[in-house]
Amino acid sequence: MTFSRPSGRQADQLRSVTLERGFTRHAEGSVLVSFGHTRVLCTASIENRVPAFLRGKGEGWVTAEYGMLPRSTHTRSDREAARGKQGGRTLEIQRLIGRTLRACIDRNALGERTITLDCDVLQADGGTRTAAITGAYVALVDAVNTLLKRGEIKRNPVFGAVAAVSVGVYKGVPVLDLDYAEDSDCDTDMNVVMNDGGGFIELQGTAEGHAFRRDELDALLALAEKGIGELFAAQQAALAQA
Amino acid sequence: MTFSRPSGRQADQLRSVTLERGFTRHAEGSVLVSFGHTRVLCTASIENRVPAFLRGKGEGWVTAEYGMLPRSTHTRSDREAARGKQGGRTLEIQRLIGRTLRACIDRNALGERTITLDCDVLQADGGTRTAAITGAYVALVDAVNTLLKRGEIKRNPVFGAVAAVSVGVYKGVPVLDLDYAEDSDCDTDMNVVMNDGGGFIELQGTAEGHAFRRDELDALLALAEKGIGELFAAQQAALAQA
Amino acid sequence: MTFSRPSGRQADQLRSVTLERGFTRHAEGSVLVSFGHTRVLCTASIENRVPAFLRGKGEGWVTAEYGMLPRSTHTRSDREAARGKQGGRTLEIQRLIGRTLRACIDRNALGERTITLDCDVLQADGGTRTAAITGAYVALVDAVNTLLKRGEIKRNPVFGAVAAVSVGVYKGVPVLDLDYAEDSDCDTDMNVVMNDGGGFIELQGTAEGHAFRRDELDALLALAEKGIGELFAAQQAALAQA
Amino acid sequence: MTFSRPSGRQADQLRSVTLERGFTRHAEGSVLVSFGHTRVLCTASIENRVPAFLRGKGEGWVTAEYGMLPRSTHTRSDREAARGKQGGRTLEIQRLIGRTLRACIDRNALGERTITLDCDVLQADGGTRTAAITGAYVALVDAVNTLLKRGEIKRNPVFGAVAAVSVGVYKGVPVLDLDYAEDSDCDTDMNVVMNDGGGFIELQGTAEGHAFRRDELDALLALAEKGIGELFAAQQAALAQA
Amino acid sequence: MTFSRPSGRQADQLRSVTLERGFTRHAEGSVLVSFGHTRVLCTASIENRVPAFLRGKGEGWVTAEYGMLPRSTHTRSDREAARGKQGGRTLEIQRLIGRTLRACIDRNALGERTITLDCDVLQADGGTRTAAITGAYVALVDAVNTLLKRGEIKRNPVFGAVAAVSVGVYKGVPVLDLDYAEDSDCDTDMNVVMNDGGGFIELQGTAEGHAFRRDELDALLALAEKGIGELFAAQQAALAQA
Amino acid sequence: MTFSRPSGRQADQLRSVTLERGFTRHAEGSVLVSFGHTRVLCTASIENRVPAFLRGKGEGWVTAEYGMLPRSTHTRSDREAARGKQGGRTLEIQRLIGRTLRACIDRNALGERTITLDCDVLQADGGTRTAAITGAYVALVDAVNTLLKRGEIKRNPVFGAVAAVSVGVYKGVPVLDLDYAEDSDCDTDMNVVMNDGGGFIELQGTAEGHAFRRDELDALLALAEKGIGELFAAQQAALAQA
Repeated sequence: MTFSRPSGRQADQLRSVTLERGFTRHAEGSVLVSFGHTRVLCTASIENRVPAFLRGKGEGWVTAEYGMLPRSTHTRSDREAARGKQGGRTLEIQRLIGRTLRACIDRNALGERTITLDCDVLQADGGTRTAAITGAYVALVDAVNTLLKRGEIKRNPVFGAVAAVSVGVYKGVPVLDLDYAEDSDCDTDMNVVMNDGGGFIELQGTAEGHAFRRDELDALLALAEKGIGELFAAQQAALAQA
Repeated sequence: MTFSRPSGRQADQLRSVTLERGFTRHAEGSVLVSFGHTRVLCTASIENRVPAFLRGKGEGWVTAEYGMLPRSTHTRSDREAARGKQGGRTLEIQRLIGRTLRACIDRNALGERTITLDCDVLQADGGTRTAAITGAYVALVDAVNTLLKRGEIKRNPVFGAVAAVSVGVYKGVPVLDLDYAEDSDCDTDMNVVMNDGGGFIELQGTAEGHAFRRDELDALLALAEKGIGELFAAQQAALAQA
Repeated sequence: MTFSRPSGRQADQLRSVTLERGFTRHAEGSVLVSFGHTRVLCTASIENRVPAFLRGKGEGWVTAEYGMLPRSTHTRSDREAARGKQGGRTLEIQRLIGRTLRACIDRNALGERTITLDCDVLQADGGTRTAAITGAYVALVDAVNTLLKRGEIKRNPVFGAVAAVSVGVYKGVPVLDLDYAEDSDCDTDMNVVMNDGGGFIELQGTAEGHAFRRDELDALLALAEKGIGELFAAQQAALAQA
Repeated sequence: MTFSRPSGRQADQLRSVTLERGFTRHAEGSVLVSFGHTRVLCTASIENRVPAFLRGKGEGWVTAEYGMLPRSTHTRSDREAARGKQGGRTLEIQRLIGRTLRACIDRNALGERTITLDCDVLQADGGTRTAAITGAYVALVDAVNTLLKRGEIKRNPVFGAVAAVSVGVYKGVPVLDLDYAEDSDCDTDMNVVMNDGGGFIELQGTAEGHAFRRDELDALLALAEKGIGELFAAQQAALAQA
Repeated sequence: MTFSRPSGRQADQLRSVTLERGFTRHAEGSVLVSFGHTRVLCTASIENRVPAFLRGKGEGWVTAEYGMLPRSTHTRSDREAARGKQGGRTLEIQRLIGRTLRACIDRNALGERTITLDCDVLQADGGTRTAAITGAYVALVDAVNTLLKRGEIKRNPVFGAVAAVSVGVYKGVPVLDLDYAEDSDCDTDMNVVMNDGGGFIELQGTAEGHAFRRDELDALLALAEKGIGELFAAQQAALAQA
Repeated sequence: MTFSRPSGRQADQLRSVTLERGFTRHAEGSVLVSFGHTRVLCTASIENRVPAFLRGKGEGWVTAEYGMLPRSTHTRSDREAARGKQGGRTLEIQRLIGRTLRACIDRNALGERTITLDCDVLQADGGTRTAAITGAYVALVDAVNTLLKRGEIKRNPVFGAVAAVSVGVYKGVPVLDLDYAEDSDCDTDMNVVMNDGGGFIELQGTAEGHAFRRDELDALLALAEKGIGELFAAQQAALAQA
């Protein structure tokens, strides 16, 4: 008996990834990222003010907000604005996105500005947070380039690149970039965020069923490293276009 | 001296209108509507339950929710989910959308089901509520056709069509389908919703500066009637595609 | 068979209208307005500050808040303060009241002051928003006269008058000033706000059942114009008293 | 030098008290109570359901809600519905009103019904909670009489009467029924609720400045007893009218 | 038949009272107070700012917050942070604690500082609010002594002492310091707060069942006076330790 | 120059760990856990109902709530109940605690019951979430033993043990069990949750400054494994006591 993924992908194969810059026109950076059927609109907005705890220090801030359109999912979810609060999962994800993108920003070089990355899921099929991080990086670079072009900053505050992917153990086999069908039938999954220097920015592994052994962890990290390498290439290709 | 609109359009000319069906895959109806640069994603979701006040009556319900992505606008707006409540403008618009689409539904034929129309603005350039109504109608028809195809309902509960457009007095001249540049520099504007029998479903006219005279009202209604006629044609053309 | 209204009124007859100034003692303007059994307490409060977006511009602001006492209605409604938020209908109405009263105020002449119009429904029998607008105008004039008497402003910032009435098609006949019995059994209704120069400030028409034709619209507007003329007379008579 | 109250009243003199039944028409009981310039609208609403903790026990419930119109006070207060929550003082007062009125109700005789007493302050001049209790009792009796008249209950669930008054030490002298001028310049005040059997239902004494001695407490209780006796007479007189 | 309390205590006997200073290490004052099984952690925190209404007046502020851990009670209660609001009982108690402790503070001597007393119930067995007041006083003294030691204030702003106890009529007999078993089976109870000059700061008596007569009130006040005397001794003993 | 930790501990040394069972008396399990100065009260409460999504399935549920007393920290934090919502960090931590403890529970053996683990931080000095998980496990076992003793369940639903510790790179050296001084001056930290079969339940690593390399990750995991082994011993020792 041979193992097969619902999508027919190889164990170490990403879904088709696209990064469409300039998807909307008002934001300083606007990227529609797709990891297969997962589609997230990532916009980067620049504002000339910082949160209270940073005022007067000459440093900037990068933060993120995350949301899912009510019918981005298989069955409709409540609109968080209507329920009157953001859920725990939402807060957890937007804190993650903001934290990881701050890891590639020199906040002094940014100056007293805030860049807000809004990641809104138009269609969900697993991996929305990793797609969001990967796309938000591109939107962030576009926003920063706007500042450089306008002469508002002198030095590029972005150093290196950041991208993210999920990995998990599906039917006993470590696989890369889980889609919804795999994610909902998976014992263990992990979200991995890396920089292009090969360093880990975030690791979030959760064993819902079977606790993972050390050798499984090693295999998962190897898969993530391979996938993220491909995501860096996709980011660079997208940014190389006019 | 001749009058001219910022966009160069004729006074009675709509912006370019597109209705892209199947824009996302999970919803029973999913339409990306564009009125020029205004782009609204309208999804129709079917659920087999009705609000408490209708339970056990054999009738269905159609309702709407509206939202703007934080950076759909020129400058970033707060995310309503983060602020913890929907603003008055949002509530007013979603009540309007729900009310006008219930005007073309036979709720008995729908049976004890709710169809929720989520209208999320991806990009705003004036007229988001009228684009939303016009697009939501198409999503509603797609959702109802899903029910008919599945044999869950016998009779088509949609009768006629509904579409909407804005009109206003811009620099003293009545014009059709205001974009943002006109809307923000306009004394008087009116949103008009009609059905394809020539009846008015909603009229909402507001004079921010100069109170409008009866003859201006007549001119505005004539423009709206013309524009809505063209919108009905666009809806039918979109629905005629496979 | 002849048509008759539940109240026995003629189709073009207002309910008995009273405007009792000085109903409470602390507010700068305090008017109890009655349209038949509908009774709304309208107070105008002056504060020497303006919202953030107007600070330092030398302009004033007029705004409104609306509420219904829980048992102003046939059956008790939840108290909005206890539920923790104002409903969509409430927000919609208070936005309307504020907008229409700003239409008769020269905000430069008012100076950096806010006048808040609180419209609280003590008893509801249809037409609370139109009664509120009509009564709030008188409270606003009283508040402005207080400022003039105290010498705090030089020039009267109120120009013209504003009043409002509802009209609707009841059992096929256009009628003026709907009471609750008519309103809840009515296909079409419209709230009309006018100034005393004959201009329209707001038109809000809604067809719950039968979409209204153009000739019905014309008949409704004529009725509204007649009724509002009588309301202007009632306002002037009330203001003429000591 | 002789002592004098701002109002010129004797130390043991109530303000003028009126209880106007039937002030509004929809509620089963509706009383406008005035203690001098303090005016509170008390309505009693009957509903055929009880809170979850009482369901199926055959017992009824009496509860209260309290609110102040924003401009019932000298300077405008925020509307609690707009702020999104009821303040601590509001909750404290409505809990007090509900508790004291439950003290004169046989909940078994009431059956599975809730009577809600809404006490809304139209004008405040000190003593709003004691006026509310005194007026709500009359509204409660009217509501219960409605049930008796309709034959929905057999036995009168109201036993005895309940009324309330404030007392305090003003400029060193114990006085009855503090108005706002006294209340805001008073070292010690106490709200006293009694039944007509001479028993105390609630005592709430607070020393903002000077802690009160035992002999002052005795004098205050004697004043309260006298005043409440007069309030019982006023309640009976009001209820004796058709 | 002789009367007996569930705990076997005499009618005029307090539970065992302990005041453990320095229970936690970060707060300027931190006291774990026990009245029998009732245990409340009272911390006093100093901040160099005052609420807006006091800014620039050179006066300080003392305020309190109260909470119960969800399982401090016999059955688990909802966590108020999760429900999204503090209940009426909580607000009432924390207002009481703040008010009574302000009664022994010279706010001018404190200077523009706020001392916040957080009273968190670890285990509840009746009398949490009176234990909280008694313990918070000790925490307040410790915090003020910190300020004196640091030389931040010159003069001790605390004058006198404040303590509190509950009394009630249990099975017809007036008793001191009700525990939960008594409290939940008690017709009448009263919380009494006094200063060490013998003055009453607060009296809050409630008759849930039988309204209390004047002679019962006198007996309850005598019991309270005796118990509070013992609490002052316990406070002084605790403060006398290093 | 030699490396030293602020506390003088060895790099692979835990703080002093205590687990005090029966700290409070009402909860079915109640444990005060200390990791050095970090003290968390963990209570386990049993309720005979399950969340809606599990009703009628015969399965139980284990969930957690987390809170910090306002002055458990160096400077006072806002009370979440007063602010009206739980912050993102709180939600993230309580989701983590619940998830990890569900990893050692057979929910079928538990039956339709919910066990809620309330983890309230009395004093914080770094590592509150890992202390909470470690202590909550003991409280959970105590609660389950209560059910077994009462005969309410037949089979022990707890399998294995769960404990957690933090690790991080402090001044370039991988260290075990970070205290606050280390945590706030640390480039990289990771929370590790394991079961006593050597499997990983959760890994949450965050690089605030320097992204961690693969060899650092390996060193951190080895430290965590060592520390968690000692925590399992401490849990067993505590549970072995009467």
